[in-house]
Amino acid sequence: MDYRIEKDTMGEVKVPANVYWGAQTQRSIENFKIAQDINKMPKPIIEAFAYLKKAAAITNFELGVLPVEKKDAIAQVCDEILENKLDDQFPLVIWQTGSGTQSNMNVNEVVAYRAHVIKGGALTDKEKFLHPNDDVNKSQSSNDTFPTAMHIAAYKMLMETTIPGIEKLRDTLAAKSKAFMNVVKIGRTHFMDATPLTLGQEFSGYAAQLTHGIKAIKNSLSHLSELALGGTAVGTGINTPKGYAELVAKHIASLTGLPFVTAENKFEALAAHDAIVESHGALKTVAVSLMKIGNDIRMLSSGPRSGIGEIFIPDNEPGSSIMPGKVNPTQCEALTMIAAQVMGNDVAINIGGATGHFELNVFKPVMIANFLHSARLIGDGCVSFNDKCAAGIEPIEANIKKHVDNSLMLVTALNTKIGYYKAAEIAQKAHKEHTTLKEMAVKLGYVTPEEFDAWVIPANMVGSLK
Amino acid sequence: MDYRIEKDTMGEVKVPANVYWGAQTQRSIENFKIAQDINKMPKPIIEAFAYLKKAAAITNFELGVLPVEKKDAIAQVCDEILENKLDDQFPLVIWQTGSGTQSNMNVNEVVAYRAHVIKGGALTDKEKFLHPNDDVNKSQSSNDTFPTAMHIAAYKMLMETTIPGIEKLRDTLAAKSKAFMNVVKIGRTHFMDATPLTLGQEFSGYAAQLTHGIKAIKNSLSHLSELALGGTAVGTGINTPKGYAELVAKHIASLTGLPFVTAENKFEALAAHDAIVESHGALKTVAVSLMKIGNDIRMLSSGPRSGIGEIFIPDNEPGSSIMPGKVNPTQCEALTMIAAQVMGNDVAINIGGATGHFELNVFKPVMIANFLHSARLIGDGCVSFNDKCAAGIEPIEANIKKHVDNSLMLVTALNTKIGYYKAAEIAQKAHKEHTTLKEMAVKLGYVTPEEFDAWVIPANMVGSLK
Amino acid sequence: MDYRIEKDTMGEVKVPANVYWGAQTQRSIENFKIAQDINKMPKPIIEAFAYLKKAAAITNFELGVLPVEKKDAIAQVCDEILENKLDDQFPLVIWQTGSGTQSNMNVNEVVAYRAHVIKGGALTDKEKFLHPNDDVNKSQSSNDTFPTAMHIAAYKMLMETTIPGIEKLRDTLAAKSKAFMNVVKIGRTHFMDATPLTLGQEFSGYAAQLTHGIKAIKNSLSHLSELALGGTAVGTGINTPKGYAELVAKHIASLTGLPFVTAENKFEALAAHDAIVESHGALKTVAVSLMKIGNDIRMLSSGPRSGIGEIFIPDNEPGSSIMPGKVNPTQCEALTMIAAQVMGNDVAINIGGATGHFELNVFKPVMIANFLHSARLIGDGCVSFNDKCAAGIEPIEANIKKHVDNSLMLVTALNTKIGYYKAAEIAQKAHKEHTTLKEMAVKLGYVTPEEFDAWVIPANMVGSLK
Amino acid sequence: MDYRIEKDTMGEVKVPANVYWGAQTQRSIENFKIAQDINKMPKPIIEAFAYLKKAAAITNFELGVLPVEKKDAIAQVCDEILENKLDDQFPLVIWQTGSGTQSNMNVNEVVAYRAHVIKGGALTDKEKFLHPNDDVNKSQSSNDTFPTAMHIAAYKMLMETTIPGIEKLRDTLAAKSKAFMNVVKIGRTHFMDATPLTLGQEFSGYAAQLTHGIKAIKNSLSHLSELALGGTAVGTGINTPKGYAELVAKHIASLTGLPFVTAENKFEALAAHDAIVESHGALKTVAVSLMKIGNDIRMLSSGPRSGIGEIFIPDNEPGSSIMPGKVNPTQCEALTMIAAQVMGNDVAINIGGATGHFELNVFKPVMIANFLHSARLIGDGCVSFNDKCAAGIEPIEANIKKHVDNSLMLVTALNTKIGYYKAAEIAQKAHKEHTTLKEMAVKLGYVTPEEFDAWVIPANMVGSLK
Repeated sequence: MDYRIEKDTMGEVKVPANVYWGAQTQRSIENFKIAQDINKMPKPIIEAFAYLKKAAAITNFELGVLPVEKKDAIAQVCDEILENKLDDQFPLVIWQTGSGTQSNMNVNEVVAYRAHVIKGGALTDKEKFLHPNDDVNKSQSSNDTFPTAMHIAAYKMLMETTIPGIEKLRDTLAAKSKAFMNVVKIGRTHFMDATPLTLGQEFSGYAAQLTHGIKAIKNSLSHLSELALGGTAVGTGINTPKGYAELVAKHIASLTGLPFVTAENKFEALAAHDAIVESHGALKTVAVSLMKIGNDIRMLSSGPRSGIGEIFIPDNEPGSSIMPGKVNPTQCEALTMIAAQVMGNDVAINIGGATGHFELNVFKPVMIANFLHSARLIGDGCVSFNDKCAAGIEPIEANIKKHVDNSLMLVTALNTKIGYYKAAEIAQKAHKEHTTLKEMAVKLGYVTPEEFDAWVIPANMVGSLK
Repeated sequence: MDYRIEKDTMGEVKVPANVYWGAQTQRSIENFKIAQDINKMPKPIIEAFAYLKKAAAITNFELGVLPVEKKDAIAQVCDEILENKLDDQFPLVIWQTGSGTQSNMNVNEVVAYRAHVIKGGALTDKEKFLHPNDDVNKSQSSNDTFPTAMHIAAYKMLMETTIPGIEKLRDTLAAKSKAFMNVVKIGRTHFMDATPLTLGQEFSGYAAQLTHGIKAIKNSLSHLSELALGGTAVGTGINTPKGYAELVAKHIASLTGLPFVTAENKFEALAAHDAIVESHGALKTVAVSLMKIGNDIRMLSSGPRSGIGEIFIPDNEPGSSIMPGKVNPTQCEALTMIAAQVMGNDVAINIGGATGHFELNVFKPVMIANFLHSARLIGDGCVSFNDKCAAGIEPIEANIKKHVDNSLMLVTALNTKIGYYKAAEIAQKAHKEHTTLKEMAVKLGYVTPEEFDAWVIPANMVGSLK
Repeated sequence: MDYRIEKDTMGEVKVPANVYWGAQTQRSIENFKIAQDINKMPKPIIEAFAYLKKAAAITNFELGVLPVEKKDAIAQVCDEILENKLDDQFPLVIWQTGSGTQSNMNVNEVVAYRAHVIKGGALTDKEKFLHPNDDVNKSQSSNDTFPTAMHIAAYKMLMETTIPGIEKLRDTLAAKSKAFMNVVKIGRTHFMDATPLTLGQEFSGYAAQLTHGIKAIKNSLSHLSELALGGTAVGTGINTPKGYAELVAKHIASLTGLPFVTAENKFEALAAHDAIVESHGALKTVAVSLMKIGNDIRMLSSGPRSGIGEIFIPDNEPGSSIMPGKVNPTQCEALTMIAAQVMGNDVAINIGGATGHFELNVFKPVMIANFLHSARLIGDGCVSFNDKCAAGIEPIEANIKKHVDNSLMLVTALNTKIGYYKAAEIAQKAHKEHTTLKEMAVKLGYVTPEEFDAWVIPANMVGSLK
Repeated sequence: MDYRIEKDTMGEVKVPANVYWGAQTQRSIENFKIAQDINKMPKPIIEAFAYLKKAAAITNFELGVLPVEKKDAIAQVCDEILENKLDDQFPLVIWQTGSGTQSNMNVNEVVAYRAHVIKGGALTDKEKFLHPNDDVNKSQSSNDTFPTAMHIAAYKMLMETTIPGIEKLRDTLAAKSKAFMNVVKIGRTHFMDATPLTLGQEFSGYAAQLTHGIKAIKNSLSHLSELALGGTAVGTGINTPKGYAELVAKHIASLTGLPFVTAENKFEALAAHDAIVESHGALKTVAVSLMKIGNDIRMLSSGPRSGIGEIFIPDNEPGSSIMPGKVNPTQCEALTMIAAQVMGNDVAINIGGATGHFELNVFKPVMIANFLHSARLIGDGCVSFNDKCAAGIEPIEANIKKHVDNSLMLVTALNTKIGYYKAAEIAQKAHKEHTTLKEMAVKLGYVTPEEFDAWVIPANMVGSLK
């Protein structure tokens, strides 16, 4: 491979001849040979950097510390990044310095050197049109840019992928709830037969879980909307012009269309990432919900002959390489695996968040990588589960009817008529003698057949339907 | 020991002669010999049951399904429970049925039998004035009472212990921040010397963390305010009179002084405990904050001669059984151990929340026990840390001054004057040659001594102080 | 309350007049008002201290640094502790200094002052027969005694409670496996019908899980057998006589009957508690197994009329306060709640283990408290589950037979005769047309009725039974 | 794009014309649009499948159920996979069916169709030389192949990457320990000054941690060596020839050079993945160790002027984009981020392992993906940390000497001479009056200057050095 020589404050480095990155990016490649094929810095972080470098350039220009030509050059390369034209210029992995400095410098170098080439320069020119530190990074530090990029990327993904995905699934479950509102079925508590409810009521619980989950995520957005930018090295804002922090947040808000503001306390914004911890806490709450929903759906659809078998889910693929004709709840499986992953990611994020010291948390890349992973998985996972499973769910009426008709727990309807103890006696003896509630109730002399028929009506045991 | 014979629907049980509990409580004692000495059902749950049983009795009376004498009798015993007069009547542990049925029945039995004794009856009477199921548990199921008790206990503890504890510590940290606002000190990023900030700014970050944490907890209260009561067995509200759910929530709100409402969706409220998961997510966010704060304080106070040594914390006790005169940051240690516990509890709660099936989550006791544990620990821990440590923190000015004066990172002030690269050269050479920045800056010819003195002033590098 | 005045190196403290503890214990009570009613230092730690204080006294005597009378006095009080005579003398909670110094001093004080009283002295005497630090703590530091107590307590509980509990359950499951070895039943993969196996084979998997789990725990004992004692303050063994470490380990081994040895590396033994982390990793593996087993048992026993219903489990108590006659798998619920707790405890332990600094890990109390909690819960939980559930499991043959006879997955037996694709066609069409495999197989012309009967025999599909 | 039509038991699917995969792989691509760009099935799993498909073919041939030509054709494609020639033929992600069926079928299809092309056939031929199910998957099920691939991949990575990586770091730390064995330095407990030890002793603790960690990993290999293959659909071994399980394990052992054996209990091997849970428990123990070591190293190297500053670590890159000349402990940061990730992965694995049902755990892909991630990260991370940090560590003698000379905890040496209380008085007063121990000791009249010099010698306080 052809190389050129790049220099940073520590000396010379050989860099592939045609790449736009420079010495510091190259050092990171060589210093951190850790899972380089599988743990690239997430692309949403690179995009977030493009927004913030552009916003910083505009702000620096407006505040008189950057000439218009440099501002424009920076903005142009940032736009190229956002148009995915420079995707192969960001080779670093998350296993680097915990401040993300090297990824910040990767962006600084690519913006500076690409701009130089756009301006007609050569990558081998000693002096370049833009300096990675003095121009592209002007009024910035890795310490405030990286957490800013974290919040931009996290907020964007929640808004564009996660929340819409959950909402889509929630809407489908709510629609199913309405459609199934009159399908009376056996309830199950402790995995055992209980009093009846309707399939629509059951699904309303799932929809309510997700509605609450969406609300929990939205509650966390306010903290995420706070941007560290302007805090620079330790939160004091050293080397920034007056008014910079507020203005750059305004520009980021405008470029992204999201309601970002400057963080009220920059020391917190650099030294801790509680906003990420807090918001991921909401994501893991949703994961908990999805695990419950996914499990219920797979159990309700179990069978086809020796399970619960009360709902039909779509057959998407052959289910077994050895058992012909087998169909499995594979979307439930992907969804519940995602839930497990998100609950694990939560712990990684907690530990990262808890282990920062003094003015800078240096678990930034691992925290945001896990956050974005979870946010993406929940969003994609809900859409996949929705489209390939939930949307196609239908009741299996015959099984549902059989289960509810046989249930001994219909006896609960007699509590208010004959008392809990006599009702229990009926159920226990019917169970032991493999007979029906009605037969046993009459045999024990606690009710007449007519009373039983009048009092024990599953459809009357499900409360008001809405 | 003397016994009496009690009966439930499964037959006879020998119960200690003088206890107010009955057959089902006794069965649980015998069936669950698991850590009985250390894992009692948390007392706040018993108290919450007292509120709800009283509220249910009042509601049942008002809706015409319970006579006034029974209502009054139930209320009287509930008041005794709230006055701690019956503390030894609740022997069960959390390792019981996952619905908490046995604790619900424990309360039902104690209320019924104690009331009978108050009325002049004997524990050995066949018929009692109140029936545990038909009267005390009227219009209720374990399935809706236990989650209601969970929310009451959780909400109460957050309001009475957790939030006040965090606020107390936050207020102290904020006051310290103000007091220390002009103490210029070295910043540390990556645990390495960085540009200066003030000790007050550093502490403002801690206060900001807790302010955000309090907000996160408060965000979760709305979900916790929803009560399952009225859902009975599976969420349909079977065997409840019309209007019951709304009215009983109103009475609970009135008795506790907290803004409880009936859950919009009772199926969710029984089958999932996402409110607990969500709210504990906020608690673990606070735990993450406390771990960071506790670590920082212990590191800042490290020494006395070979550490960072920038703050003094109170000496509360001899620190070593072998090293005479040693004093340790023991409050930091208790606080960070608490943080570790809460992060662990979070995982137990997640798994419990995720593993419910169909109409009932049966990890209720383990979920609420871990929740209350965390809420208590954070509240108590913050107060202890506040009173015995934070309130007594003072700067050690001599060390602070020495550190800031020596710092090579003051060179950052020169970035905007001579550029990042030359500034780096100064710092690196000063480091290598064990000299000062000023000496090296002048020696390299990048600045005059006068320029250096004018440009590199720590107190000017800390931004605006507020 | 009456008080007496005690003194330590920091000054005077008021102590309840009649307790055996002294100034440092009292300071801890007052300095750490954190969950004092629920989080006492675990009793097995106090017992472990009794063993080690006695062993240290004997060793000190044998090495000539402690007179025989003092050795005997220390030993006598240690024996009283082990006989549970001094249980109320250890009031401290785990939320104290992270080295456990205060509990070490609690033991030192109680031993010294109780011995003085035994000798005929008064608690108010200025000079006592034994000095807590100079005699009882001789050749020791909290830094090596507390981790030694951790290993003693952990090892003992694993041997006396945890492993026997798991073994008891494993043996029952293995016996059930043998008893049910010829009960052919439907298999379920993906919660869907699959090819048959026997109930005994299914249970053999559970037994194998626990056998592996026991082995995993035993693998961890070697690291736990290493004792820190002799390392004193930082691992160097300062202030210990020559030969002390090896000899005191020998005495502890002899007193406890367990194969303790002196840790090869004392620096590791004080600064890290990887042995606890490693061993608890085995406990959480068992928790994972128990969650799976508990879930399977509750699902297999589900019904009685609308579930899987293939096994009967004992009815131990009424299952519902509202649904008469309901019986629930409550032992499964306690067991799976325990599993959730242990998985949570694991994270608390990990964080504690990871957050030690330099020569001393100061998360000792939280780590050992969680460890002992898990070890106890698994032991007790397995016994409870064994005695009240597993031992009474019986197959419900009628349901088992119905399920296996109806299964479409018996078609797998035809793979090697007619190929996977034709077999799949049979199963799919039989499913769609609600008919039997045989009818469809013959109708499609792929086999004759005789061939079908000869080839598709569930009992021939379960492999060799052992 | 050009397509061809492929068929499976559910019908026709359009597949890109030139790929070797078939209908089922394509269905999975379309059904699981979840994080497809970042969560590919790990390559070590594909390689493991190549080993096992080859071994199965050989075994099937040897047992007379597969003709030699088919055996050879399968083996040839498997070799191509192992030579990385078919890397782009495995497009699936881990978010698929939880049994990994689709990845098993992906391999079956690629082997069958590629073999057909090698034989001169066309991808569009109706009949192919090999059938994915009937030939390539002969005597197999996804349910036994995927867990077999899990164990092969896990075992291989532990042996080839993880253990060598840890050993490399351990050896360096042990060598540093020897090299630094006489460098007397201050000890730190509770992050506070304590009695001295040598830098070599301190490093010996790190080495001992990793030695124990390696042993813990090796303890888990025995369970991982058990292969599920031969269990087929549910563990009974349906559709396998006699002797198959043992023979195929022997062939896998021979092909991989690793001591694989057939699992004693196939039901456990399919239904649970406790071996993965157990072995990852060892990995997270190592992660805990690495967090501690990484934290210590960064703290010991902190400064350069206002920190602990006792060791020098290599400067690998510029540390700040704003603070010129700053150098950071970036390798510590990558290592500790890895530790956080592994502790998070552990929870995902636990939840996956705990949530299997009946005869099949369907969290296989998420479990093995997290396992391999951790195993890789620890291996790579240790090597990176070793090469770029640990290998270059050197003591900063001047700071070390200053710290130890100033320490008040040297007073501990006086305990055995004048007693703990008087020693404490010396240390406390010296601290308060900012003087030296010696001065204060003499001033208080407890020792003569000569005694002090004879008794308080740091180098004599560090015990025996080895």
